This record gives sequence, structure tokens and C-alpha cells, in this order.
Amino acid sequence: MAVVKNREYPEHCSLEEALEILLAEFASREPKIKKVRPSEALGLILAEDTASCRNVPHYTASAVDGYAVTASSTSGATPATPVTLTSSEYLWVNTGMPVMEADSVVMVEDTSLETSNGGERLKIFRSATQGENVRAVGEDVMNGQLLACRGDRVTPALVSLLLCAGVKSVPVFARPRTIFIPTGNEIVDEETWLSDGNIPPGLVVDSNSAYAASLFADWGYELDVSRILPDEPELISEAVSKAVGEYDLVIVSAGSAKGLRDHSAGIFESLGKMSFRYVRMKPGRPAMAANIGGVPVICSPGFPMSCAVTLWSLVYPLIRTMSGERVECRDAGYISEAIGSREILKAGLLANHSSPAGVMEWLRVKCAEVEGRKFCWRLSAGASVLWALAEADGIAMLPESGLEIPKGSEITVLLTKRVNLSRRLLFQGSDDPAVNMLVSFVKRAGMELAIRAVGSMGGLAALSRGDAHFAAAHLLDIRDGTYNTSYIEQFSGGRHWRRKLIFHREQGIIASGGNPKNIRGFEDIASGRLTFENRQPGAGTRVLLDYMLKSSGLNAADVVGYDRISITHMEAANKVASGVADATLGIKAAADALGLDFIPVAKEPYELVFSERFEEHPAAPALLEAIESGEWKSAVTRMGGYILPGEATEF
Amino acid sequence: MAVVKNREYPEHCSLEEALEILLAEFASREPKIKKVRPSEALGLILAEDTASCRNVPHYTASAVDGYAVTASSTSGATPATPVTLTSSEYLWVNTGMPVMEADSVVMVEDTSLETSNGGERLKIFRSATQGENVRAVGEDVMNGQLLACRGDRVTPALVSLLLCAGVKSVPVFARPRTIFIPTGNEIVDEETWLSDGNIPPGLVVDSNSAYAASLFADWGYELDVSRILPDEPELISEAVSKAVGEYDLVIVSAGSAKGLRDHSAGIFESLGKMSFRYVRMKPGRPAMAANIGGVPVICSPGFPMSCAVTLWSLVYPLIRTMSGERVECRDAGYISEAIGSREILKAGLLANHSSPAGVMEWLRVKCAEVEGRKFCWRLSAGASVLWALAEADGIAMLPESGLEIPKGSEITVLLTKRVNLSRRLLFQGSDDPAVNMLVSFVKRAGMELAIRAVGSMGGLAALSRGDAHFAAAHLLDIRDGTYNTSYIEQFSGGRHWRRKLIFHREQGIIASGGNPKNIRGFEDIASGRLTFENRQPGAGTRVLLDYMLKSSGLNAADVVGYDRISITHMEAANKVASGVADATLGIKAAADALGLDFIPVAKEPYELVFSERFEEHPAAPALLEAIESGEWKSAVTRMGGYILPGEATEF
Repeated sequence: MAVVKNREYPEHCSLEEALEILLAEFASREPKIKKVRPSEALGLILAEDTASCRNVPHYTASAVDGYAVTASSTSGATPATPVTLTSSEYLWVNTGMPVMEADSVVMVEDTSLETSNGGERLKIFRSATQGENVRAVGEDVMNGQLLACRGDRVTPALVSLLLCAGVKSVPVFARPRTIFIPTGNEIVDEETWLSDGNIPPGLVVDSNSAYAASLFADWGYELDVSRILPDEPELISEAVSKAVGEYDLVIVSAGSAKGLRDHSAGIFESLGKMSFRYVRMKPGRPAMAANIGGVPVICSPGFPMSCAVTLWSLVYPLIRTMSGERVECRDAGYISEAIGSREILKAGLLANHSSPAGVMEWLRVKCAEVEGRKFCWRLSAGASVLWALAEADGIAMLPESGLEIPKGSEITVLLTKRVNLSRRLLFQGSDDPAVNMLVSFVKRAGMELAIRAVGSMGGLAALSRGDAHFAAAHLLDIRDGTYNTSYIEQFSGGRHWRRKLIFHREQGIIASGGNPKNIRGFEDIASGRLTFENRQPGAGTRVLLDYMLKSSGLNAADVVGYDRISITHMEAANKVASGVADATLGIKAAADALGLDFIPVAKEPYELVFSERFEEHPAAPALLEAIESGEWKSAVTRMGGYILPGEATEF
Repeated sequence: MAVVKNREYPEHCSLEEALEILLAEFASREPKIKKVRPSEALGLILAEDTASCRNVPHYTASAVDGYAVTASSTSGATPATPVTLTSSEYLWVNTGMPVMEADSVVMVEDTSLETSNGGERLKIFRSATQGENVRAVGEDVMNGQLLACRGDRVTPALVSLLLCAGVKSVPVFARPRTIFIPTGNEIVDEETWLSDGNIPPGLVVDSNSAYAASLFADWGYELDVSRILPDEPELISEAVSKAVGEYDLVIVSAGSAKGLRDHSAGIFESLGKMSFRYVRMKPGRPAMAANIGGVPVICSPGFPMSCAVTLWSLVYPLIRTMSGERVECRDAGYISEAIGSREILKAGLLANHSSPAGVMEWLRVKCAEVEGRKFCWRLSAGASVLWALAEADGIAMLPESGLEIPKGSEITVLLTKRVNLSRRLLFQGSDDPAVNMLVSFVKRAGMELAIRAVGSMGGLAALSRGDAHFAAAHLLDIRDGTYNTSYIEQFSGGRHWRRKLIFHREQGIIASGGNPKNIRGFEDIASGRLTFENRQPGAGTRVLLDYMLKSSGLNAADVVGYDRISITHMEAANKVASGVADATLGIKAAADALGLDFIPVAKEPYELVFSERFEEHPAAPALLEAIESGEWKSAVTRMGGYILPGEATEF
């Protein structure tokens, strides 16, 4: 879908096309060459074929510990018919010692030294052939022999070989110098962000600079980071102009505002020549590049994930090319290197996935294995979401062709962490901070716990399908006010699922800090004087609200805002924090996170539900011990809003 | 085969056992903890669970570019039935901007702005639901939410996340400090080796220090290297004593002399407690470790390859453990990391291999693919041979069980280089420096050439079996004095193998520098006044000698030393250089490497022989162009001893 708008450069390219353009534009410029000592050349690319300056070994050396002899003097020697030599006919040599007069060496194991009246004599039990156990001069490397070619990377082994071969210095390609220019009115620098406890709404930290600098460090490259520039074309233009005079590669991190993205193209066009704009990938679409004064300038989109994929898939191969390597556009191996992936995993998608047509999609995924089936699921679609990239086990790249990808379809994951799926439990259920803490406890026992937040019903359904090792339930059956049992029976369908109550979780009315409207219970909620924020149909909290209203003889119709819907605890609590609503129902952790008041009204039994074969899993003991451990229980108690089994509950 | 010699520590352990001992001994000692800024924590291991200090986002933010509205005001809007809002009912927001009064954001793509007499108005073509396109406070990360666990590695993504989450410093495990102590009377330091043009026989450069330092640098660890210590137990003991007081890990590089290996054990036993001695691996058998003052001390064998495997398989997992990571002894993934391998390749052995029983064998291999079959072959068995490690494509570890492993058996190669087998040609044939130079030319064209030196007959046989893409021949048929044709016909068995003469190679009499015995031709060789060094039966050079003696009417029996045998050009030339023989027959490159005189006596046509499908190979054009290129031809001519096609030949 190339849309040319009175310009002469490609737009909406595929990633491969964009990379081809970059490499074609900049690969031919030969990097600077510097001559360095071999040890300083580590990791760099040789600029010339390099030959040995010496013969290695430079003398005739023994290859074993033994006795240097003339082979013919040992003729006929066998264990049954040993040959005896006088002391002038042999000479002890250690491995590596010079062999001067003799032409072979007998291994000490094939000899026996005797001392007698006449002096010392050597008994030999195996005849030697000429040249046996002797390393000739130049046997390893000949003087003038080609050691490595232009374009080869200097590895530790090559450093060592070059040294032995007497090479004092080698010409290598210098690494390019890069500057990263963060721009935008909405970003603040690291210092400000960390020191100021009250950053105004609308301002976020410049995380892209920190990410890029860390990535470059992992790649073994230096990166200079400029101060943040405001969203002003003249300032940015001036900075880019200056940068191309001092650096080999310039990366401008665009602000997130749509306005600025238009600025960048204009700036680049006025300073040089655009290479491409827009890449058919998601995230990362707004990526663009230009040739300004012969220097590549890449404009990386502002969203963290968009910036990340631009660095991996465009900047990294370019910087390797600019370091003197030959990079093939179709070689996805470079992306693996860029993200630090050493291993791939093929796993089935745990849910249907709609991939946009005509666009290559990047997914951050987590993986698990249940009953021998390897799964993966996506973590968040948002390009601004940072935890997803840190939490992910790896990255998957879905091709442009993919549209509706059904659950179970196998995709290839470039793993960015060492994962041991056989030691990993998969929990599917409702998101709870106390349960999240179990991840750490399980890890300490050398096992792993992955959590997929799909809600209680979703978790039990997953368990039923064999898509999880365990789930959780805190579901109220409004017919009789009991919890969990009817649901578990329904989903287990007769299978023996073990249940374990791990705590009672408090649900409460969440009100503004200080409870200015003096809310004490559901009578206030249904009084008409407050605005309530409800949860979506199906949410446990909504079910609880209905039940509690009914049991209190109150009418849902009297609750102002009953039809207002939030999808998560935090979203609902946010409505109270922002003043849009006066109250909602939710868990204490949400109230605490936003500094709101919490009036407990119910405690719900939170039970873990284990698949019938759970205990066979290698990590099962670790999990079961964790939920019994004093340390976890203390941590949960400290959070507040939880009542552990055995503790008194008052209300 | 545990042999206990009045000692209480294990000997002759398997690699796995040795590593288990090391980890059990030293893993429980917790590394020092330091608090650093997230960006300084990159690559280090978290010492504590780390939680968010903030809500992210910290304000309600728009997730798109568009207009913030109250969802209910857009009710019923569709493209056919748009809803129009007055300017007080909407507010433009860029992605990331705060959403204050409104509860949702309509994407700009779903709107149209109109200006009319009454002012500006917004037409909306799609109704919004509450909370749509709005990111709630803490939607990404909640204040107090667990971000990463103790034991997690700090990645670029985590650095970025920690920064966003307001984390100013994190406790991480400090990396251990290591010292490498080279010892031995036979090694000299880098400076001496490089500056002195005449190192005496018996002395070699301390290459292990350079290798270890480079390896540690690649691993991201610092390594101090001490000065070389002579083979004196008291000095070494003193140095080790001092080192364990200043470092967390001490590596002593043993001399190659058998004597010293015994010293090390004695030194360790007197200073501390031995952990193990001798590992059932080859190379690397003499590796040993001890606990001296609570500090791990590893004695690495002196041979370069033995030192290398000790660093990869024992030091690396230990140093990762000492950095706070959990290392599993059975996890060969650590060896992959240690050698920088990102990919494995399964390939069939190109030749039978005898692997010693009861010992895990390390192989340095090179790989190729012919007609869809992936091969690998070992490069050198010598533990002192450095070029083999630099030249190798990867490392294979043959298990203890393997004895006679037949050709074709599949082994797993941990690739240490990026190889593109589909672009690689495999040449099997006689080792020739001019042919070796083609490697570089082919590489410049983006292709690859691997050379396996098996001699002319071996190469044609390989070609015949389909184990190579091309071979070479410079074989004299003594029945009629012709070259190559009869052999090629014999091996090709009717298949259409293309032949190409690339040069005539001079064979000549190699004599001491200055030709003190005034050797002019074969008459002198058969005169009885000289000692000759012959080649092995089957060698082309030996065949040539016989033919030339016969055609000159001379008698092999008159050649003193006719029965003396050397296996390669260099070995034979070495005999002349060392004075053991007065003359031999060989190529000019061998004479030049040793500064010997060369009296040409014959020129042999050196032809490349291509398999019938050679031209289909992607790298074929690159090779064919290389052998026609002026640059290669000039380089060959400069070497001397070669006559290119078309050049006049005088003798």
C-alpha cells in the first residue's frame, strides 16, 4: 500500500523493504579503520585479511612427555621384546620442549627407566616411527598463512591465535558513534522524575533513553544521549544538523504527539533526503529514516514498545552493517541478537488472536507447558505498556498475512529469558496482589509460576480445558449465598479437583480519602445521594453488590450509577479517586494504591483449585509450601484486606 | 573410575560431578549486595523482590489521539447517524494527555470537525462506551505491585520499567572479582613475545591469559591477570595465599610440564582443601579445584584448548552462580552461553571417529551442507592447536559412552559463528596456500568456502561420494607422465565432472638457506653425498620424485634417506631446516616459510574438479569469479612458486 504524497521516497514499506533501503543507502560507506592490538580488537570486525607473522610452533616441539630418540634405534621394540637404550641415546622431554637431535619421542608410558652398575638405561616397549609425537615447525600455523579474513569478527580464540602468530596490530573497523535525541513536551528526564514526588498529569519520564542506552550497552556499543528537546521544529532541526556532523548514526526519539510525527518528516526533508516513512509493523508504524549529510538519521516513534521494535529491527542491523559486517535483510537472526535471544520455542496460542492485515505484528508473550502441550499468550497490546516487555518470556513476530489466528496455532517465540517450562506452573484466574506474590516464593525454591489474569470464571474454564495447572475461585452463588462449590462442580464435571482456601479477601466500599460523604454501608449506596461506579456484568464484585443489596432489602434501581461500568478494580477505584464517582465496591489493594478509604462489607473465601494431576508437577511442592509459609502469610497480612485461615475475623 | 590416593576428595569425576561439587561448595555463599541506580544494574541479578513505587500511569491518560467526551453524549452515533457535539462537550487530546472531566475518548478517525456560524462543532460517527480509549491510573503498574523477583536478571526492559515505576535504586548482587595467575617456566608474556624477533626454542607465549581475559570481557566480567610466575611451588603458594585474600575467585593456569601439575595439588592441599582433581573430559583432564579460605581456586590445565574448556564448563557456571544466579549442573545451556553460541546444528560426522571410552570429548568442528546433507568434521585433535579453535564453526561434546562413532552419525554442534550453510562451498583436497586464499575472495562476495585438507586422492574420493562440492587434482600418472585425467576418470565413474586448471604449481628441491651443498638437480640427490627426506607413499610429491628419478635414469636405491618419511610439505621442509636432512622435494611456500632455498624442478598442473551439480550452488559464481579475478591472481603470483594460466613458463 505505497501511498506517495508528492514525495519521492517509499512509504508504508514492509520491515524487510525498509531495512533493504537502509542497508543499500548506508552499507557501502566504509567504516573508519583503526589499527589496534589484538586484545583491543575483541568483538570488532577485521578490515583486512590477516596472516601469521610467524611459524607456530617456532621450533620442533615434543607433543608428549617422554624420551626423544632416533626412531631407527627403537626398531622392533614391543612389550614382549623391549629395546634398551643407553643414556646417550635418549633425552627426557616434557610436552612442548624442543626436540633437537632426535626425530621422534616415545611416550613415557611406553618406557621404563632402569638404573644399574653401568648407569641409567631406558627400556622401550613400543617402537617409534620417524616424526612420531613431534610437532614440526609451522605445523599449527605457517608464516604467511591466512588466519582470518576481512569481515571476520575478532573472537577470544582469534585474539589468542593472533598473539601466538606474532601479530602486533590488526586493522579493524571502528564502531559507529551514535547519539539518541529524545524530544517531546510531555517527557521529563530521569532526575526530575525520580526526585519529584508529584509529577503533574500529562508528563511522563523519558524511558526510551534509558532503554536505548541499556540496549546499546548490551550490544557492546556506546550511546550518547542528548538532553530532552521540546517539541519545537527549529530546535530539533538545529540539533539534528549538529549531530550529523559529530556522529555516524543519529536517532531522534519522537514525541508521542501526532503533531510532532509530522514535524520530523518535514525537518528531515528540509535537512536532507528521506529514505522511508511508515513501516508496516505494529507497533512501530511511524518509524522513518533519512540521509542527512550522508549520515543515517532514524526517527523512532515515541511509544516505548514502538521505540523498542525500531531499535531491534532497524537500528541494530544498521549498526552492525556500519561496523563492517555483512547483514542480510531476510536474516531474522539479527533480531534475535538484538533482543538477546538464544533460543526459540514453538508454542500454541492460548487464545484466538486477531492480527491486523498487511502488518507484521510484534507480540510480547509468556509461555507455559501443560500436559506436554506448549502454550504462549500475549501480554498486553498497548504500545505504552512497559511491564509487558519486562515480564515477557519472549517476542513473537506474526507475519503480515495473519488475520484471524485460531487458538492452538503454533507460533515461534524468540525467548529472551531462560525458561524451564517443565518447572513452571500456569495459574489462570483473577488478578490478585497476594497471589502475585507467590511468584517470588516459588522462584526461591527453584521453580516458576506464571500467572494469566482471566478472572475466576475464565480460570475455571481454562482448568476444565486442561489449559492451566490450577485456578482460583471467589465466586458467590446468589441462589444460596455460598461460594465456589457450585461453580467448581460445574466446571470440573466430575473430575477430582482439589480445593484449598488460602485466604478470605475483603471486599469493601471504596470512598474518597477521608470518606467526606460519610459512607457506612449499602444504605448509603442506595440512598440516592451518592454516585456509584459499578463493575461489568459477570464480575464477582458486581455479583456481590447485587447479592448484598438484595439481602439488605435494597433496590438496585435506587443506586445512582448502577449502570456505570468499569472493567477492573483499579478502573473503578480510579473513578472515585478522580471524583467522577463517590463510591465503588472493590478490594483494599485498589483503595490503598490510590489513597482512598476502604469500608469492609464482606469477606470472600478465595480458594485455589488444582487440576487432578497437579501434585505430579515438579513445582507443586514449591507452591504448596509457599501458601503454607509463614513468610508469605506475613507479607499478605501486612498488605491488609486479607484474612488468613485460622485468624479471627470480626465483622 | 574413582582412584583415591590417601586423599579424601573425588578424583576423575565426570564434568557434571565436578560442577556439582563446585556449586555445592560455593553456591551458598551469598555474593555481596550493592545498591545501584537501575541503569547501573543492567546485567546484574536482583538481590530482593522489587515493587513499584508509583502508579503507572499516574494520571488518567488518553490512549489515542482524539476527543475526550462523556460517553453518554455520543449515544447512538453511527456513520449513518452521526451525533454532533458543541465545543463545550469535547476536548482534543493527544495520546498520553490527561483526561480530566470526560470518561472516554473518541478516536479522531471517527470524527469530523465542522466550522459554521455558531462556531466549531464535532461530528461523531461512532458511539463511545465508558472508559473507552482511556488508561486508568495504575493500569500498567500499581503502586506496590511486584515488578521483579530476587534472582531476576536486570534487562534493558526492566531498567526502563523500574525507572517508570519510580524506583531510585535496587539492591543487586555484585559480580565476583577474579584473578588469573599464569605459571610456568616455558611461557613468556605478550610484550616479550611480540617485541622479540627471536624467541628461543622451548618458550611460548602466555596465550591463556589473553584468551581468558577476552572470554571474561565477552561474558561481561572483569579479570585481573597477574604477572607470570615461574614453576616454583613457594612462589605460587605465596601468590595464591595472597590472591584468596583479595579476590572472590582465583584461577591458576598450570604450566604444561607434568611436574607442575603435581605441584598444584600439593600447593592447594597445604593451603586449603581440595574439591576435586581430574575430570573425565578430553581435553581438560587435569583440571582441579580447591577451597582455600572459603575462596574457590581453580587450576586450569596449561594447554590452550584444555584451559579453554575448563573456563567454559567449570569457571563460567561457577562465576554465574557467584553472581547470584541459580545454575543447574545438567543445564548445558551455560556452556552455550560461555562460548557465545546462539544456535545449534545437528550434522553428520564426515569421517569415522574414535572417541575415548569413559571420557567426554570436546571437538572443534567445521560444517558444510552438500546436496541437503549437513556434515561436520573435526579440526585437529591437539590441545595446543590454536588455529582450530579460531577456525571452528562450533563445538561438539561427545558423551562418555561414545567409542567408535561411524561416519554419518549425527552429532550436535553448538555453533560459535553465524554460518550460512546454503551459501557455503565445501572443498576437499590437498592443502595449498593459494587455494586457501580463495576463502577470503569468496567471503567478499557474501559467500563462504570451507576447506578440508585430505590430499588429492582423498578429495576426489570425497567428491565421488558426494561429500564435497569440488576437489582438486595434481596427480601424476607415472605410466605416461600425464596429470590428473586418469584419476579423474577413475573417480568420476562416468559422471560429468568439470575440470579447471587454476595454476601450475612448482615443485622443487628444498635445500638449506644459501644452498651450501650446491644442489642443482636430481643427479645431486642420487649422488650419495646428500641426505634426502622423502614423503609418505601415496603423496603426490613422492610419486613425482619416483617419476623424475626414473626419467633421469637414476636409481631410487642411490638416494640416501629415500626411506625417511615425512607426512606434510612442512614436516619435510623442517627436516632440512633443522639440518637432519640436506634436501627434500616440496612446494615453494614451505621453503619460504622456513627461509630455505628452492630449486624448481617441475611444474604440476593444479586443477579444480567440480561435481556435476556444482554450478547450481549459490556460491558457485563467487568461486568461479574469484579464480578469474586479477586480484587473486596477483596475490598468488606475489607468493611465488605458481604459474597462472597464460603466463610464460621457463624451465
